[in-house]
Amino acid sequence: MSARIRVDAVIDTVRRLHEQSPLVQCITNYVSMDLAANLLNAAHASPAMVHDEREAAEMAGLASAVVVNIGTLSPHWVTGMHEAARVAAERGIPWVLDPVAVGATAYRRATANDLLTHRPTVIRANASEIVALATAQGAGRGADSTHDSTAVIDQAKALAATTGSVVVVSGVSDVVTDGTATVIVDGGDPRMPLISALGCGATALVAAAAAVADTPITGAVTAMAMLADAGERAGRSAHGPGTLRPALLDALWTQRPEDLSRVVLR
Amino acid sequence: MSARIRVDAVIDTVRRLHEQSPLVQCITNYVSMDLAANLLNAAHASPAMVHDEREAAEMAGLASAVVVNIGTLSPHWVTGMHEAARVAAERGIPWVLDPVAVGATAYRRATANDLLTHRPTVIRANASEIVALATAQGAGRGADSTHDSTAVIDQAKALAATTGSVVVVSGVSDVVTDGTATVIVDGGDPRMPLISALGCGATALVAAAAAVADTPITGAVTAMAMLADAGERAGRSAHGPGTLRPALLDALWTQRPEDLSRVVLR
Amino acid sequence: MSARIRVDAVIDTVRRLHEQSPLVQCITNYVSMDLAANLLNAAHASPAMVHDEREAAEMAGLASAVVVNIGTLSPHWVTGMHEAARVAAERGIPWVLDPVAVGATAYRRATANDLLTHRPTVIRANASEIVALATAQGAGRGADSTHDSTAVIDQAKALAATTGSVVVVSGVSDVVTDGTATVIVDGGDPRMPLISALGCGATALVAAAAAVADTPITGAVTAMAMLADAGERAGRSAHGPGTLRPALLDALWTQRPEDLSRVVLR
Repeated sequence: MSARIRVDAVIDTVRRLHEQSPLVQCITNYVSMDLAANLLNAAHASPAMVHDEREAAEMAGLASAVVVNIGTLSPHWVTGMHEAARVAAERGIPWVLDPVAVGATAYRRATANDLLTHRPTVIRANASEIVALATAQGAGRGADSTHDSTAVIDQAKALAATTGSVVVVSGVSDVVTDGTATVIVDGGDPRMPLISALGCGATALVAAAAAVADTPITGAVTAMAMLADAGERAGRSAHGPGTLRPALLDALWTQRPEDLSRVVLR
Repeated sequence: MSARIRVDAVIDTVRRLHEQSPLVQCITNYVSMDLAANLLNAAHASPAMVHDEREAAEMAGLASAVVVNIGTLSPHWVTGMHEAARVAAERGIPWVLDPVAVGATAYRRATANDLLTHRPTVIRANASEIVALATAQGAGRGADSTHDSTAVIDQAKALAATTGSVVVVSGVSDVVTDGTATVIVDGGDPRMPLISALGCGATALVAAAAAVADTPITGAVTAMAMLADAGERAGRSAHGPGTLRPALLDALWTQRPEDLSRVVLR
Repeated sequence: MSARIRVDAVIDTVRRLHEQSPLVQCITNYVSMDLAANLLNAAHASPAMVHDEREAAEMAGLASAVVVNIGTLSPHWVTGMHEAARVAAERGIPWVLDPVAVGATAYRRATANDLLTHRPTVIRANASEIVALATAQGAGRGADSTHDSTAVIDQAKALAATTGSVVVVSGVSDVVTDGTATVIVDGGDPRMPLISALGCGATALVAAAAAVADTPITGAVTAMAMLADAGERAGRSAHGPGTLRPALLDALWTQRPEDLSRVVLR
């Protein structure tokens, strides 16, 4: 894809997102509940936080996309995650895995590994998590240090090739790859990582965009581009991470599809 | 009641709320935890988020009002909801049911139905949820579309008559009815629905106001009028849903009882 | 310690906090999840919300400090709390207990009592909670009324002596004592108590500072002084509790170690 086509596809995807308001079921961690729901609303999507095994599958059947985020795990939640991911996979509903801190504990590694059997449409994480996941999948080699997103492109591509998922690595620049095509999204504000769970919120936006996009990679690029543009505009009025958050929600809400033409994809 | 009397009763109820700072136990969903607690604090009430069956009943006995919100259900939480609602009903403590997304899954329908046996003092929901609940109670007919609050007045009145609860339907205009008297509260800001869980927060404010009001319907009208006035004032300085939220909390905190004379009740 | 030495130690502790970015595991209540994580990020620390018994101990072994907050209890969470506190105690990792509403229910009293067996490095609470805890520990006499922090210095000292913990009593002035030395931190903004779970966030900051401080009492004083200074600066631009919160995060993020020389310790 040329950058020109990509930007047009991105603009078109934002337009559809605004028009269709996809329902996004989020099984996500406690820290991210508030921000993810508000980001989805600000992006004209519709959040539904439903996690229990008694209704997770039924809800997934109603949703346009599903988020599974392992940030604050408990066994009952993991059961619900499997139910929702399974239904999403069976019915071709895009679902996005966010393997929060997957390298930190055995429980996270096992849970992420099990969830991968449902073949996520997209995996979104930071560089360290992608390396941990790629290593566990035999798709790359781990390292102890914290990684920069663009430094782990090879592992991201290998993970995409192994899993069949689009892989998004968040960072100063965001890397999006399906194993063959790779797009880098620049922009945003350097204080965005200080907003707790903004990465989890990005995962929710990826799901929303994937629900309406022609391809998962277009959806993933669109969501990251939306955040990059909104973050950059929000940063102009923010005095720190505290005021950046409401400004980011405002910027997303007032974002017009054509604003995405400002985002540089490479 | 004439509108004149109603406004006086509303002003008086806000005054009592400020003076008495009622303790409101909230068994509410994860998305709403932060906002509901902050709205209660901003309204001079006192929040207590206590849900487990080991202490829900004991806490309800100490509370001035109880909120039961089914937004993010799990079986252990449902047990706590029943404990708190049962104690509230037994002791005449106002309790408010928020049947979030009751039409979406069988688990929600069953849970809401079971909770109705404790006869909530108030039910607060959006139009679609009221229709779903009314239909399930044989108190109206459902429809697939999303509803406007004023379009479902008949179902709201029928639900109130069937359950004995005051019914609040949130929307551009809020409908409050006990089955006989019906009050419509106008105002607010069109971006308020973009603040995730603001409806759940409204439920918490209804509980707080019901704790001090002469009648449940006066409490419910007062809470919705407080939000309408505060939302309208907050909207003047807000640039989108992000900045609307802190502005709304500020507006509630600085709200004087007599400010409620600006709200039009009909 | 003279006040002069204390301020220097506080400034030095903030400097270390900024340099070392300690990882703070928080097992904390649902209301506080968002704010505690954002406060830690704004203070240059790194939050990790991990609670389940399957990984709580493993995570504690990786953390520089641990928070256990009993605000929204469930049995599975209590198991995780014990796991994390036990590992922290065994390995000399500072851990901080926040006994939210300990006086309200039997479940809270029992849970707090059990957790004390792991000998928390610091206990942070409001005056009423300190009195309830001190009374339960036979370290003072309870009372029904709400207490001012400086009115309960004797109970705080007695609780510190009985438990071996540093005790922090939050209030208009914050009291910090190890049973022998007692420091009072003034400052902040009178609207800070209206920010729900800010006390829980203070607990998280105490843990972060204790992770890098020479002594637990220096860490506790540093955290409260950081909040006092940041709150005071935030208050200048805030119009109420809503805008105070993002302003407080901004003020923490822009706080320089030498800013702490403005805080009066006595």
